[in-house]
Amino acid sequence: MAPMKKLLNDPADVVVEALAGMAAAHPDHLRVDLDHKLVLRADAPVSGKVALVSGGGSGHEPLHGGFVGRGMLDAACAGEVFTSPVPDQILAATTAVDGGAGVLHVVKNYTGDVMNFEMAAELAAEAGIQVEAVVTDDDVAVQDSLFTAGRRGVGVTVLLEKIVGAAAEEGQDLAACAALARRVNEQGRSMGIALTSCTVPAAGKPTFELAEDEMEIGIGIHGEPGRSTEKLAPARDIAARLVEPVLSDLSLKRGEQVIAFVNGMGGTPLLELYVMYGEVKRLLDDAGVTVARSLVGNYITSLEMAGCSVTLLRVDEEMVRCWDAPVDTPGLRWGG
Amino acid sequence: MAPMKKLLNDPADVVVEALAGMAAAHPDHLRVDLDHKLVLRADAPVSGKVALVSGGGSGHEPLHGGFVGRGMLDAACAGEVFTSPVPDQILAATTAVDGGAGVLHVVKNYTGDVMNFEMAAELAAEAGIQVEAVVTDDDVAVQDSLFTAGRRGVGVTVLLEKIVGAAAEEGQDLAACAALARRVNEQGRSMGIALTSCTVPAAGKPTFELAEDEMEIGIGIHGEPGRSTEKLAPARDIAARLVEPVLSDLSLKRGEQVIAFVNGMGGTPLLELYVMYGEVKRLLDDAGVTVARSLVGNYITSLEMAGCSVTLLRVDEEMVRCWDAPVDTPGLRWGG
Repeated sequence: MAPMKKLLNDPADVVVEALAGMAAAHPDHLRVDLDHKLVLRADAPVSGKVALVSGGGSGHEPLHGGFVGRGMLDAACAGEVFTSPVPDQILAATTAVDGGAGVLHVVKNYTGDVMNFEMAAELAAEAGIQVEAVVTDDDVAVQDSLFTAGRRGVGVTVLLEKIVGAAAEEGQDLAACAALARRVNEQGRSMGIALTSCTVPAAGKPTFELAEDEMEIGIGIHGEPGRSTEKLAPARDIAARLVEPVLSDLSLKRGEQVIAFVNGMGGTPLLELYVMYGEVKRLLDDAGVTVARSLVGNYITSLEMAGCSVTLLRVDEEMVRCWDAPVDTPGLRWGG
Repeated sequence: MAPMKKLLNDPADVVVEALAGMAAAHPDHLRVDLDHKLVLRADAPVSGKVALVSGGGSGHEPLHGGFVGRGMLDAACAGEVFTSPVPDQILAATTAVDGGAGVLHVVKNYTGDVMNFEMAAELAAEAGIQVEAVVTDDDVAVQDSLFTAGRRGVGVTVLLEKIVGAAAEEGQDLAACAALARRVNEQGRSMGIALTSCTVPAAGKPTFELAEDEMEIGIGIHGEPGRSTEKLAPARDIAARLVEPVLSDLSLKRGEQVIAFVNGMGGTPLLELYVMYGEVKRLLDDAGVTVARSLVGNYITSLEMAGCSVTLLRVDEEMVRCWDAPVDTPGLRWGG
C-alpha cells in the first residue's frame, strides 16, 4: 500500500498530537487535557454560566475543538477520527466546566455519540451536576444511515453552538438554553455533496470510491453513502440539488428569513465555495427567502474530502441577536 | 479527459462568479467591481487614511480579497487563477480607495505582478495619487524560479497586510507604512511543501505530477518546482526541513521573538496543520526562539493542493501591537 499523503507521524497519535498543537497555538484561549482528549476554555469553569459541552469523532475540524471559547463552547471531547468520544471523556469535560448553572450537551445524531453522551449525563447527574442534552439531526439526505437511527447531525450543529453559546454567555439558564437549542435544531436543515472521498489515517485508504466523473449527493460527514451517485454537474445544478430539498423540508415561505451556511468538506478551495454561495443566494432570491446572515467556509469538515454542504436555518429575532453576539474561538471570531 | 472535480460552472467564469458570491456573502463589509475584478472595502475611500491595495492571481484564497476590510486591505485586485492582475485593474483599485493620504501597493514578487503594479503606480502618479510599493520576497526555497527573478513572495504577505493595515488604520502616514512594510518583509521568511498537485480550472489537469510516495520540498504557491522531490516523511521530519532553513536564513538567535505561521495549502485538513504546528513549536523551543503570536490555518493557498508552509517573522514591539489591533475581514477577524 502506498503511504498516505498526510502530514502526521504515527497515525495512532494524530488526535493527541493535533490537540497538543492546538493548545500550543492558542495558549491564551484554550487548554487541553491530553489524557481525556478535551479542549477546554482557558477560564473554565465560568461561575454561574450554563456550560456547553460538545464532542464527537475527530476529522471535522474546526468542529468541535475550534469552537471552544467565549461565546461558544466551554469544552469539546475529541474522539479518534470519525469515532465517538467515550463516556469517561464526556464526564470529565462536564465536571471540568460546570460552573454551578448546569451543563448543556450538544450531540450530533450518531448512535455511538448519543449513547455515550447519555451515559455520561447519567454519571454527571449522579455526581450532582444538572445536565440537559440536545441532539442535532438536520441532514435531510437520508432517513436512517450507516451510523444513525434517524437523520444525521451535520451543519446545524455549528450554528447551534454559536447561537446557544451566546445565550449562555448572556446569562440564560439551562432550561432556556436547551429550549433555544431545540428550536435551532427544529428550524435548521442541511444537505451535502462529495466530489472525492477522504482517508482516515488509521485506515490508510479512501473510505469509499467515486469514479473520475462521479459525485455523491447527500453524503454524510464520514463518507457514508448519500442519496445517489451521479455524474458530475455544474455548480448551479448542484446548488439546486442541495437547496431544493432543504427549502421543501423546512417549508420555507416567501418573506421568511434564514441564516445561509455554505460549508466546505475540507478539500474544496474557498474560490469554489464562493461560487456555490452565489448559486445558493440566487436560488433563495428566486424563492423569496431573505438571507439575514451568511457563513461561507470550512467549519464542519470530513478531513480532505472535496465537496460542500448547504444549511439553512429559519431565524427569529433571538437567534439573530445571539448570532451577532461576540465570539472568540479559534474557528469563529467576531465582535468586541 | 475526465471532468474536473470542482464546484464551478464554466471554468472561464470562476473568478467573476466567486467575486459575486463573495459580495453576496459579505454585503456589510465589501463591495466588488466585477468589471475590474476588484474587492473593495464597503466604506472606501476612507478620508485621510493611507490605503492598502494588493492583488495577484486568484486561487490563493482567502488571500487577497478575503483580507479586505477594516484594519487590513482597502482593495484587492483579482487576476485570473494563478495569473497576474493587469495594470487597468490595479489603477482602478488605487483610484477607488485613495483617501488623500496615498496608497501602498503590496506586491508579491512574481515578474508579471511586479511589472503590472509598477505600470499602474506610474499611471496613478500621473493622475496625482501618491503611491509607494513594497514587494514581498520571503520564500527561502529557491533563489530564482519559474515566475520570478529573486525569491518568491509567499506567507509573509499575509502577516504584512495585517500589520501594515493596522498601522494605516491608526493613522500612520505613507512613508511610515511603507517603512514598516519593508521591515516586515526583511524580517520574515517562509518555506513550503506539497504532498499533491492542484488543478487550475482553465487547464483542467494537474499542474505537476508527484508519485504516490513523493512530496515536493520548497514548493511555490503555483505548483512551481521547489528544491527537491523526495520520499514522504513523518511530520516531525518535514517540520525540520521547513523550519531549519528559515531559522538559518533569518539568523534567529536564542531569546528572539517571532510570529509563527503554519499555513495550509488548501487541501490539508486542519487536524494535520495542528500536528505540524506542534512540531514547529517544539523546534522553536529547542532553538530558544519565543513565539510571541501564532497563526494556523489556510490563509495563502494553492487551490486544493495538499501541503503547508511555515513562515517566521522576527517581531518588534510595533509589529506585535499592530498584529493585536482589531481586524474585520472575511478571512481574519478579531478585536472590538
